[in-house]
Amino acid sequence: MTPSAASGAAGPRRRGRPAGPRSGEARDRILAAARAEFAARGYDSTSVRSIGKAAGVDAALVHHYFGTKEQVFAAAIELSFAPTRELPDALAGGGAGTRGEQVVRFFLRIWEDPDARGPLLAIVRSAVSNETAAGVLRHMVGRTVIARVAGELDAPDAEFRVQLAAAQLVGMVMLRYVLQVEPLASANTETLVRNLAPTVQRYLTDPGVGP
Amino acid sequence: MTPSAASGAAGPRRRGRPAGPRSGEARDRILAAARAEFAARGYDSTSVRSIGKAAGVDAALVHHYFGTKEQVFAAAIELSFAPTRELPDALAGGGAGTRGEQVVRFFLRIWEDPDARGPLLAIVRSAVSNETAAGVLRHMVGRTVIARVAGELDAPDAEFRVQLAAAQLVGMVMLRYVLQVEPLASANTETLVRNLAPTVQRYLTDPGVGP
Repeated sequence: MTPSAASGAAGPRRRGRPAGPRSGEARDRILAAARAEFAARGYDSTSVRSIGKAAGVDAALVHHYFGTKEQVFAAAIELSFAPTRELPDALAGGGAGTRGEQVVRFFLRIWEDPDARGPLLAIVRSAVSNETAAGVLRHMVGRTVIARVAGELDAPDAEFRVQLAAAQLVGMVMLRYVLQVEPLASANTETLVRNLAPTVQRYLTDPGVGP
Repeated sequence: MTPSAASGAAGPRRRGRPAGPRSGEARDRILAAARAEFAARGYDSTSVRSIGKAAGVDAALVHHYFGTKEQVFAAAIELSFAPTRELPDALAGGGAGTRGEQVVRFFLRIWEDPDARGPLLAIVRSAVSNETAAGVLRHMVGRTVIARVAGELDAPDAEFRVQLAAAQLVGMVMLRYVLQVEPLASANTETLVRNLAPTVQRYLTDPGVGP
């Protein structure tokens, strides 16, 4: 199918932003299709065309709602980062002395949920194999996880501190869920909290940590 | 090309293991082609056929020297793990109190070398996107990095300890070289050593760490 053939198949609709409940439905359907396509094929092999086809709409409608493939990817992965909105409350709950533990528990709660883990692993896969996808993920992680944890710290160099902590937790994801190295892959979550919390606590609060 | 068509193109050669310098040359050429193919296309899109074609030999000769695609991949990534042979000496050099720092410096020395980093990133890409490749990498990391560091520790649960340390360092790779998150991506190596060494030291030696 050529680009010009693709843009003529959506049937009659008004130009400009579609309104009303039916357009919201189409948008949601496109977003669900985008998540499924990116998860199944990865960033490289997914196109605005293939997303439109999976959603049963014209590729032009995908463009209309979300823009470029890069922007569709950003919208598709945003849902996976929604839980990080609760990070400030979770961190404010304990005192400064429990921040490391709170962060590790919060992170593990998400990753130990198979419904959340599948889409997250798909995002990691896309980011590792494609630089544009990596850029979208970097931006998303920066304005959700890192900004939200850094906002709760009283320490200087908050971003750098959170990145060191993120490195520890992302590496745990790589060994436990991606490579599935034993005994780490089968360790229970309390074991992980006990071993990792002091590391994250040090990065977030120790005066000796910094760039 | 069909499988039967592929196996007839290598020209006359004796059955069984080829001998002499020319066969060693062919083996090296296949290995170099395999490394280049896996790096450029990833595990999924590389085949024994495509490796043979890139090396200018019959696919059957690739099979003859290395076996299945999985086994070719194992041989192709082995070279990237050769430097870990020096790990025991590097660790024995300092006392037990400097192990964390030695491990971080050793790891950074390899990853900061662009000639080593490219192939290593390609291996990470293959392992993240394909479970068979992940299994090969898990096995390779287990019998090189993890076995060699664990062999130098006097502590119980040496493997688990090294895996926690590896998680920290692999996560640093993900944020610094794959996602290129700032300021971590531009931090100098001494800054990384200062911040990460105490973490690795704790994992490798602290009596409170364990499964």
